[in-house]
Amino acid sequence: MKASTLTLEEIAQRIGAEVHGDSACLIHGLATLQEARAGELSFLANPNYARFLAGTQASAVIVSPAQLADCRCSALVMKNPYVGYARASRLFDPLKPAASGVDARAIVDQTAKLAEGVSVAAGAVIGAGVEIGANTRVGPGCIVGDDVRIGADCLLHGRVTVYHQVTIADRVIVHSGAVLGADGFGFAPEAGRFEKIAQLGSVVIESDVEIGANTTIDRAALGNTVIREGVKLDNQIQIAHNVVIGANTVIAACTGVSGSTTVGANCMIGGGVGIAGHLNIADGVHLTGMTLVTHDLTKPGVYSSGTAVEENRSWRKNVARFRQLDQWIRRLQSLEKRS
Amino acid sequence: MKASTLTLEEIAQRIGAEVHGDSACLIHGLATLQEARAGELSFLANPNYARFLAGTQASAVIVSPAQLADCRCSALVMKNPYVGYARASRLFDPLKPAASGVDARAIVDQTAKLAEGVSVAAGAVIGAGVEIGANTRVGPGCIVGDDVRIGADCLLHGRVTVYHQVTIADRVIVHSGAVLGADGFGFAPEAGRFEKIAQLGSVVIESDVEIGANTTIDRAALGNTVIREGVKLDNQIQIAHNVVIGANTVIAACTGVSGSTTVGANCMIGGGVGIAGHLNIADGVHLTGMTLVTHDLTKPGVYSSGTAVEENRSWRKNVARFRQLDQWIRRLQSLEKRS
Amino acid sequence: MKASTLTLEEIAQRIGAEVHGDSACLIHGLATLQEARAGELSFLANPNYARFLAGTQASAVIVSPAQLADCRCSALVMKNPYVGYARASRLFDPLKPAASGVDARAIVDQTAKLAEGVSVAAGAVIGAGVEIGANTRVGPGCIVGDDVRIGADCLLHGRVTVYHQVTIADRVIVHSGAVLGADGFGFAPEAGRFEKIAQLGSVVIESDVEIGANTTIDRAALGNTVIREGVKLDNQIQIAHNVVIGANTVIAACTGVSGSTTVGANCMIGGGVGIAGHLNIADGVHLTGMTLVTHDLTKPGVYSSGTAVEENRSWRKNVARFRQLDQWIRRLQSLEKRS
Repeated sequence: MKASTLTLEEIAQRIGAEVHGDSACLIHGLATLQEARAGELSFLANPNYARFLAGTQASAVIVSPAQLADCRCSALVMKNPYVGYARASRLFDPLKPAASGVDARAIVDQTAKLAEGVSVAAGAVIGAGVEIGANTRVGPGCIVGDDVRIGADCLLHGRVTVYHQVTIADRVIVHSGAVLGADGFGFAPEAGRFEKIAQLGSVVIESDVEIGANTTIDRAALGNTVIREGVKLDNQIQIAHNVVIGANTVIAACTGVSGSTTVGANCMIGGGVGIAGHLNIADGVHLTGMTLVTHDLTKPGVYSSGTAVEENRSWRKNVARFRQLDQWIRRLQSLEKRS
Repeated sequence: MKASTLTLEEIAQRIGAEVHGDSACLIHGLATLQEARAGELSFLANPNYARFLAGTQASAVIVSPAQLADCRCSALVMKNPYVGYARASRLFDPLKPAASGVDARAIVDQTAKLAEGVSVAAGAVIGAGVEIGANTRVGPGCIVGDDVRIGADCLLHGRVTVYHQVTIADRVIVHSGAVLGADGFGFAPEAGRFEKIAQLGSVVIESDVEIGANTTIDRAALGNTVIREGVKLDNQIQIAHNVVIGANTVIAACTGVSGSTTVGANCMIGGGVGIAGHLNIADGVHLTGMTLVTHDLTKPGVYSSGTAVEENRSWRKNVARFRQLDQWIRRLQSLEKRS
Repeated sequence: MKASTLTLEEIAQRIGAEVHGDSACLIHGLATLQEARAGELSFLANPNYARFLAGTQASAVIVSPAQLADCRCSALVMKNPYVGYARASRLFDPLKPAASGVDARAIVDQTAKLAEGVSVAAGAVIGAGVEIGANTRVGPGCIVGDDVRIGADCLLHGRVTVYHQVTIADRVIVHSGAVLGADGFGFAPEAGRFEKIAQLGSVVIESDVEIGANTTIDRAALGNTVIREGVKLDNQIQIAHNVVIGANTVIAACTGVSGSTTVGANCMIGGGVGIAGHLNIADGVHLTGMTLVTHDLTKPGVYSSGTAVEENRSWRKNVARFRQLDQWIRRLQSLEKRS
């Protein structure tokens, strides 16, 4: 909920910072150092922006102890100002809280069990045998299939689909257009055609996961596709059947993970990455944007593939050479032998 | 519908296998060789898993005749155990059948014609002049535009959009979030701006096609975008206007096919592939993941592009060299002339 | 609306062309030169199709003055026949106009203000404080969050989500499944976990923008994500928080633009492109399909990355060589020194 205003002291208590300056100062919003005006709070987390600190018009700035000396307005001092900004941002979220309870125009099966404080918006459809934990909000137009379990304090924005039997733990946020539990892509070839393999498994989303808009997570052929606690998935990501994504891994938009691959914990996967099926990616792997991974990565570290952007005219020449690269290297080798 | 239980004999008849062992044995589900327990059926389709056959706790296993000797439990014997697994999986699908008929909270135009056994779920919107064939199920929140034709025995999961005039044949499955028949991306440049070209054509989906979650298939500028029979499209695929995808071609997730391209029959297109517009791709082409296709492929075979994943430190050096590759090759050539 | 029929003279007036031949000729639709039949209008915009002009069965063709001599049927003559085709296509659009007014099964908050001629279809949900301009159509199943502003003459196809506070100007078209204003992907790392940064900003869509099916545009962390006037976005595009896309830039499907990047005006971005975060892309940049951009592009021009499709057998060899490219170049350099 967007707070109308909070004092600096109230913010300090909620984010775990120490006030320097006017603790009664009223704050009504956040802004960058360059754009903040009186009544707004700013923050200095990236040293590249330190040059804007002295001149900011903000009423207060979240800074580290080392930066306090350069701050000419009130300050909220804490070790990690970026975390302070994250916490303060949540105090000023403009998203209004849903009205509690089930909207008269929602369609909730009579066998569904909704805990205290659950809200279900107009046009949402809740199936048979569904259980939803306390204070979870289900947005307009969401479809929650039969026998789904959703924990407490979750937020499903409007127009999310959760197929039958999917399990979602606590404090999970799912953005609009996401589809959890559609059929994995499984077919048995037979005489040039394909017989569908029913996807008998499901999807398990652990606690504190966030799932971006239009992201898809397929149900398992057998067993479960699993998204472990604290994972953050950006928009338009595809997670295939039987994939496991390890705890606190972060994946940027437009990335696809193919079937039965296990991604470790604490990985950072860039945007537009493709990971082939049946692979193991170790904990702590970083993949730069648009990398294609076709074999196991057994050690933490930063990995990449592809080539770098250049002018099309030179690129065309280089690409033509690449297609004969093996031959050119052989010619280099024979030159070496001769010289 | 999830069967409560079937005897091994009943399963054998439905999948076309021969029982060895206890034909009255009751089966209530499927599992892998390693995870199956008593009462479950397993299968051996991939030789890599043959080592798990002897020790499985499954009550029965689908095996080929050659593997029968190594099976210590009951067996369902057939030539292609993977097809057997596909067929058996469908007997245990946990997706409940929709209640037949039109839900009172669906919105169906009075001019729509629904054949016998059609179900339309709550919150679905069916436009004027729509015709839907026998036993087709339209999920909650689906939008079916005016004059759409859908055949028999189709399944539209929740929250699918079918724009006006699109045609869908029989036994087509469409997953949540898919959009069939949105406008193709066509504009005429004029003085630095773009005039919209209305997309007067439509989309034709032939029989036995499956379309994944959040996949988009655009309507044609003129004529039709066509998905031929038996095609299987994974999630998050983009099919542009006037594309034709040949029969029984399979496309993995996150792939895009640009306008007016024709993809042949029996192709296997990996994930994250991009195919430029106005191309012809022959029958039987396989494209590995994230390949970019910018010219016709006139022969069947396996094709690729891109580079392989490696440590970022070495990749940075190699990429820098790639940008001067043409110059290096020229230097190699002049060395060759000199030596 | 699909006109039943128009005379050639009426079409000429509406598209700004001059009639040669039978101005009373009745036209009921458009088709290509090869496929057109009597009663249909065609066009010659691409010189590659000039060979079909003489033999077309169309009743009339839109041609440039230079091509008129080769036209054996009636003609609509104008300087840019492709623009003529665009304009004529819109006269024959088969999409029926929405019934004006709010459908009884739409859910519109009582504080929403709808201007004259606004239509809201069944199952749409309009939040508190929303304002919608004259003649804008909101399709079935759309979700429009609190305090959204939408201008006049817009078309939101079915099942579009617009999060709270997003602003959309006039004549904007949004296709099904698009999500405008979901949270940007922002987290502050803290002890191996991630704290959510509430996205306090919004999205601003200027006039004459078109947004494709299942495209996502995230709200800003602070400030706005901005899509400037005349921008055309294809399907399945991801625009991250705080991105700015310059006027009349066109982006093809499956492309992703990372956070805080500014793309200039009049750019043409191919499909499957990835642009890293915090970059500046100049006006007039063209990026070919699947290019990865990791640094600023300060000059207009055509840019590319990646390698070209080839047979997998040769590709495997070349890719293996690429991984040692830096070493091979060093060996080439030492050969040069020696010779």
